[in-house]
Amino acid sequence: MALETVSTSRSFGGVQGVYRHASAATGTDMVFSVYVPEHAAGVKLPVVWYLSGLTCTHANVTEKGEFRRLCAELGLIFVAPDTSPRGEGVADDPEGAYDFGLGAGFYVDATQEPFAAHYRMWTYITQELPAIVAEQFPADMDRQSIMGHSMGGHGALTIGLTFPDRFKAVSAFAPIVAPSQVPWGRKALPAYLGNAESAWRKHDAVALIEDGARVSDLLVDQGKDDPFLAEQLKPELLEEACAAASIPLTLRFQPGYDHSYYFISTFMADHLRWHAERLAGKSDSWFRKASRVGKERNDP
Amino acid sequence: MALETVSTSRSFGGVQGVYRHASAATGTDMVFSVYVPEHAAGVKLPVVWYLSGLTCTHANVTEKGEFRRLCAELGLIFVAPDTSPRGEGVADDPEGAYDFGLGAGFYVDATQEPFAAHYRMWTYITQELPAIVAEQFPADMDRQSIMGHSMGGHGALTIGLTFPDRFKAVSAFAPIVAPSQVPWGRKALPAYLGNAESAWRKHDAVALIEDGARVSDLLVDQGKDDPFLAEQLKPELLEEACAAASIPLTLRFQPGYDHSYYFISTFMADHLRWHAERLAGKSDSWFRKASRVGKERNDP
Repeated sequence: MALETVSTSRSFGGVQGVYRHASAATGTDMVFSVYVPEHAAGVKLPVVWYLSGLTCTHANVTEKGEFRRLCAELGLIFVAPDTSPRGEGVADDPEGAYDFGLGAGFYVDATQEPFAAHYRMWTYITQELPAIVAEQFPADMDRQSIMGHSMGGHGALTIGLTFPDRFKAVSAFAPIVAPSQVPWGRKALPAYLGNAESAWRKHDAVALIEDGARVSDLLVDQGKDDPFLAEQLKPELLEEACAAASIPLTLRFQPGYDHSYYFISTFMADHLRWHAERLAGKSDSWFRKASRVGKERNDP
Repeated sequence: MALETVSTSRSFGGVQGVYRHASAATGTDMVFSVYVPEHAAGVKLPVVWYLSGLTCTHANVTEKGEFRRLCAELGLIFVAPDTSPRGEGVADDPEGAYDFGLGAGFYVDATQEPFAAHYRMWTYITQELPAIVAEQFPADMDRQSIMGHSMGGHGALTIGLTFPDRFKAVSAFAPIVAPSQVPWGRKALPAYLGNAESAWRKHDAVALIEDGARVSDLLVDQGKDDPFLAEQLKPELLEEACAAASIPLTLRFQPGYDHSYYFISTFMADHLRWHAERLAGKSDSWFRKASRVGKERNDP
């Protein structure tokens, strides 16, 4: 698997890298970022996946997410993929809208033309990119967790619910919890998956839970001043589904916060700690070791 | 003083704002950002000035600087101005180079045409913007400190050395310490200030120290893998000047770090703690109060 290094920078003791590769899943070049904390030779570290929202690339969270300090302290690899295929020949929204097409892959494998050729983000995120991460980075693939924001929160919830054994923790910032029931999803899902709503259910967190999918618990932060809250995000639908399914959901409404990275960065540390607790195994010392390394580095 | 609010977002319990105003100093509209932590009504908070480097606007540090967590914890207002005048009629480098003209004001009042009309960043940063901050924000102007990066490190050092009573702390990330002696400065200073090198000395930290300027101490972090280290930054010149003048300089070479915000964000917390220690007065309770507010908010 040929991986081109776009850039690397030392940060918080580790390495923040950006990489490009030819994706078999999407038939395009794909770019993603990986942060690897400082670690002892031979040690493999847990992997946190972060899926981004509409209009984003890997760069938004990489630059604005403020995750490196905690990942360094807790010993977590942080992987941030792109949100859609890009490049020549990749279909876009006919009017170039922000909420469909480029930057808006919704983490599905499209079945409808003209999107089926390249919009295969489900396969890319759940199969192809994990294989690359396992091969190219010091990643303990038995210890993965997933989080995301907005459309990426939708991706984190649906992928986490589909692979509960793979992901030890699932959380989201201001996620789209029920795309089948809101305008963003009701535009994207038929265009990618066709008009039969039955095909949408495995890409809708609330529907997945209604259909029997389970995770051990969920953490969701939601800004109360998020302009998309009432029409597009509707966390109350997730609350109802989790209650009916007895999934423990920690849903925190944060007064005054909007939909931006100023909101995400504020609560990123809480999410990473929550993930780290669920990624820590009884028999392993990576957590304490990594934690010690971080402490030493931060207190010069 | 009419101030237009471009945007505000809640972050780490406080408010990150971006503001625009018609500047009398530069004769242009100017944009700057201010972070104000959560604080009790009527309380005035110390002010940390952050001056940015070549090519930057207020946005770079605002998005990538990772300063809000510590400013919230320590109760510090954080002000990030632009790096030059901008807009119609503002002269630029004739070839549009990144290191002179737009985005590269070098924190001087230009005396040379065609720059003298608008490139008055010294007056803007030291007089006009402080008056706006004092009027529009809950700022304790008896408690100010200054830091900066690269060209902004140059600005922080020269302004801090010129107003040692105003700024209780001065620090820099990878600063240009002696512009008179390096290519970036030897291009910009004659074009802004004329060919007489005597006019450059009050805009050169090393020359200022040689000429008698003093501060109580300095903190400088410098990446050892910074591509500009040997030719443009030359921290050894500051080290020599501080040694000769008995100014205590903490100069930390950080192995593996480059010139980017991945470097700055790593050490931002150290700098803010260093500033907060020097901004704290014996008789005041703002430090402990703010610290307590931050702790409560961060441990939900």
